Amino acid sequence: MPSYKAPVADALFLLNDVLHFERYGNMPGFADVSPDVLEQVLGEAAKLCEEVLQPLNQAGDRQGCVRHDDASVTTPKGFKQAYDAFAAGGWIGLPIPPEYDGQGLPYTLSALMNEFASSANMAFAMYTGLTQGALAALLRHGSDEQKRLFAPNMAAGRWTGTMNLTEPQCGTDLGLLTTKATPQADGSYAITGQKIFISAGEHDLAENIIHLVLARIEGAPLGVKGISLFIVPKTNVGPDGSLCERNKVACGSLEHKMGIHGNATCVMNFDGAKGFLIGEPNKGLSAMFVMMNEARLGVAIQGLAQSEVAYQNARDYAKERLQGRSLSGPKTPGKPADPIIVHPDVRRTLLEIKAFNEAARGLVLSAALDSDVAHRSGDAAARQAADDRLGLLTPVLKGVLTDIGFENTVKAQQVFGGHGYVGEWGMEQFVRDARIAMIYEGANGIQALDLVARKLPKDGGRAAMAFFNEVNDFIAREGAGPEMQPYADAVKAALGDLQKATVWLMQNALAKPDNAGAASYDYMHLFGLVALGYVWLKIAKAALEKKARGDGVAAGMDAKLATGKFFMERMLPETSLRLARIVAGADTMMSLPAEMF
Amino acid sequence: MPSYKAPVADALFLLNDVLHFERYGNMPGFADVSPDVLEQVLGEAAKLCEEVLQPLNQAGDRQGCVRHDDASVTTPKGFKQAYDAFAAGGWIGLPIPPEYDGQGLPYTLSALMNEFASSANMAFAMYTGLTQGALAALLRHGSDEQKRLFAPNMAAGRWTGTMNLTEPQCGTDLGLLTTKATPQADGSYAITGQKIFISAGEHDLAENIIHLVLARIEGAPLGVKGISLFIVPKTNVGPDGSLCERNKVACGSLEHKMGIHGNATCVMNFDGAKGFLIGEPNKGLSAMFVMMNEARLGVAIQGLAQSEVAYQNARDYAKERLQGRSLSGPKTPGKPADPIIVHPDVRRTLLEIKAFNEAARGLVLSAALDSDVAHRSGDAAARQAADDRLGLLTPVLKGVLTDIGFENTVKAQQVFGGHGYVGEWGMEQFVRDARIAMIYEGANGIQALDLVARKLPKDGGRAAMAFFNEVNDFIAREGAGPEMQPYADAVKAALGDLQKATVWLMQNALAKPDNAGAASYDYMHLFGLVALGYVWLKIAKAALEKKARGDGVAAGMDAKLATGKFFMERMLPETSLRLARIVAGADTMMSLPAEMF
Repeated sequence: MPSYKAPVADALFLLNDVLHFERYGNMPGFADVSPDVLEQVLGEAAKLCEEVLQPLNQAGDRQGCVRHDDASVTTPKGFKQAYDAFAAGGWIGLPIPPEYDGQGLPYTLSALMNEFASSANMAFAMYTGLTQGALAALLRHGSDEQKRLFAPNMAAGRWTGTMNLTEPQCGTDLGLLTTKATPQADGSYAITGQKIFISAGEHDLAENIIHLVLARIEGAPLGVKGISLFIVPKTNVGPDGSLCERNKVACGSLEHKMGIHGNATCVMNFDGAKGFLIGEPNKGLSAMFVMMNEARLGVAIQGLAQSEVAYQNARDYAKERLQGRSLSGPKTPGKPADPIIVHPDVRRTLLEIKAFNEAARGLVLSAALDSDVAHRSGDAAARQAADDRLGLLTPVLKGVLTDIGFENTVKAQQVFGGHGYVGEWGMEQFVRDARIAMIYEGANGIQALDLVARKLPKDGGRAAMAFFNEVNDFIAREGAGPEMQPYADAVKAALGDLQKATVWLMQNALAKPDNAGAASYDYMHLFGLVALGYVWLKIAKAALEKKARGDGVAAGMDAKLATGKFFMERMLPETSLRLARIVAGADTMMSLPAEMF
Repeated sequence: MPSYKAPVADALFLLNDVLHFERYGNMPGFADVSPDVLEQVLGEAAKLCEEVLQPLNQAGDRQGCVRHDDASVTTPKGFKQAYDAFAAGGWIGLPIPPEYDGQGLPYTLSALMNEFASSANMAFAMYTGLTQGALAALLRHGSDEQKRLFAPNMAAGRWTGTMNLTEPQCGTDLGLLTTKATPQADGSYAITGQKIFISAGEHDLAENIIHLVLARIEGAPLGVKGISLFIVPKTNVGPDGSLCERNKVACGSLEHKMGIHGNATCVMNFDGAKGFLIGEPNKGLSAMFVMMNEARLGVAIQGLAQSEVAYQNARDYAKERLQGRSLSGPKTPGKPADPIIVHPDVRRTLLEIKAFNEAARGLVLSAALDSDVAHRSGDAAARQAADDRLGLLTPVLKGVLTDIGFENTVKAQQVFGGHGYVGEWGMEQFVRDARIAMIYEGANGIQALDLVARKLPKDGGRAAMAFFNEVNDFIAREGAGPEMQPYADAVKAALGDLQKATVWLMQNALAKPDNAGAASYDYMHLFGLVALGYVWLKIAKAALEKKARGDGVAAGMDAKLATGKFFMERMLPETSLRLARIVAGADTMMSLPAEMF
């Protein structure tokens, strides 16, 4: 049976020592979070995830969800009780303003809870995560009346949320969507069409489900400029929030998937369902993007979360499994063999995962803080800078953390040998669950294109330049001295590769957009490596400071420094390979006629 | 529904134009294989795989195998008829000498059939592939009487074979095995113990199952020097080959696995089962290694096979799926969107797979020819050289082809977006099936260790030096001229990285073996890249020659040249990253105490 312990100590180190959480104390919701409160909140989050969600994960995978003839869906045994506990703890509404019955706490804490919950039970955490995404879109673009009616019920978990974008003929290219919205006399719309791959589309966890649906109002322009966003409740809601008659929307079938079996992935049929426009007609895409951006960060967190739980289990197994002897002579001569953690290649495997996880968590928390600053800071310049950086890094985090997160589940599985391939130890489930994160909320190739074609050139490259300057400034300010310099030199070289790649794109992509497309995936990963390296640089500084203060944590800080060194020596050099691929350009790949593939 | 077409034309190009199959005509079994016969044999192999095996693959995954209360096992619907057709076609005994009722044809053809069959239905192909592996061990180490009794029945497919190594406490480290062999008065042994992860351990395809079992004769030395190899038939066999009473061996349960559901992976219980020693007592490991070496090449082929079938389906989907517009302007303006193969990043994905597949196939065929030469050539020097190269490259092929093969199934799945994650299109099955190949027959970390610790230093490095010289000579002889030079220069640089890494190992691993372990995985992949690059160099030469002869295949050869160029520009540069990791050494990874992971 797999196990899980939430990395509370690492999260506290990152928040307190690396990211200086206390500096944000002047923002709404932050003042209440003293170091003690922070530790207490994370402790409670850990407890719920470890004791309630995680024990349901493996059984949830085996049972899956069941659709009945009346189109209702039953989730795996225990999910309903776990959901009630999650909702009762206030975790869904944690970052939602108190006026909508939320706790008004930092989104950063919510991001951490999402990591813990996704490690413990990813299929489960999607039900609550999607509700949070739908809430974000509703609070930004909904009318006051819509917010009043829906937000408190969603924040409390009585109702859940979904996002309905994909149709059989329409995935990445939302311009192709055909779901139709017909204006009704009462100001509502009748929504008709079919949506597929709808996560949490139907279930038995909550009293109602609030679908956010992209559809085309009759007569609207073709393409993405004719798309509007609608609220379509599963059960219609009276002005006082009471549940009325069932709406004309139903789950047609459940998809049979590789993983996340505990989450109901539905084909949703809308047969003239009553819908309410959110925001302006034909501006649905930008409203939905609020939800998608939050969801993309949430998916990045899933990549980290699966990597973390897979790591923990592989590490424990490597310390227990006796097989073979150390190359440098027996380490446990009294036993029939040494634990496999003595083998360098097992250590290499584990360290590749560990060195990613700790930096990725730092990156997620930094992005989450940016999100808090962008929405809550009283300083307009700070808001703008945070928003710039968050926009730039969101596709990087989504693409890179889910790609590497998945690879890490495969590596962790490998540590188990044949025992990793059978269901018993749970490792193969992590692989199957993690795989979806590379696909949904915009496949990673789309994230890469978003980065090179939209986020990079935006505002004359302002966000990218600011990020490069930030890293360079940190190196200049903190990178000197024998202890920091090895880390700083490595990041400087990596940043140099990223800047060369950026210049190459500026010089070669404008005249020939295929060069941008051909470079995009490697550029995204190059960017991710630099961002992760930058976090390691900040971790190294914090670890050295903590050691210098001598507060009895030297062993832990030495481990941080060694892990960071491993990252610099063995992982960050990948930037030069990424650069070489980028400057190879698009010519060769475009030269092959389609029929010769 | 996924589809599959066996790559017969590519195989013929590799055999005839790149590897000069006709030059081997003086060896037993090769004389009969004229170009026409070759084409005909491959055509028949293709037909069986495409029309009989492939249609059973997806249903076989869904049904899986079922164990009944009497310990019998039923394979998925249709497997028995397919097996009978496979056996009746003479495919199992294809490379077996005619004296044992085989066809005596080249093993090289058998390797190609194994690729086609593993693409079409990997779970199925394991039943026949394991029989071939058991046959190889039997023919090499069995007594004349054992060969007479078992080989013809196995070659004809009436009986199948298995290999029984793993026990719960004993995987990689075979020295830990405890299955016991007690000598009996009649010269046989009573075998007692439990084996796990036994592929094809029990099924309903054949009349009998011949288990090859590693066990320890009572009183034998501890460790690997006390292991012997036994034949343990499922049903005992009379001296005339007639089936007698059931032996005391039975399937205790089936493993629940990530993939290859159509193959019965069994826990096998031996309760004093009658067994017959193969070869000498306590020399079982070397006898089993014959089987394992053949099996390792077979597993390498599975990696390629899953990569190939996943590629074909992704390519077809990319040509059909309409989504978005080309970055350089619409390519099919009359349709609602362009096929996604217009997008550079989709092409990059497909070309990474294609550039691997075509070179990997060349590498497999080259190794298979080495195996034929090593066993059939009349020239002792040629036999030795082929055996050297095969021994050196076997761990490289097993490790690299299964690692990249798996990654490629993931990439191919990604081309489908959400449709790749659901079962319908079959892509997620390829991922799940391909995953096992990285694990069984020696996990890839063990292959890497076999390469650096055993194969590389063997005979004073003779095999490695010969390989480096061979590549260098080819570059010197064929690498000049404007057409060949770009390919030759790239391979030369890559070979330089490999030689630097080899020198580093020589200088740093002897005094500190952990440096070898820490370098092993990267060294294996570095070696694989050079070997694949070398094949591309040979393909480029053959393609240019074919174009120069003007025999109407220019488009196909241009595609080869472009694909090879893509490999040189975007994939081979990875050698420098691998070298950088290798020379980073073991110090950092060994510095972390186990409890700090």
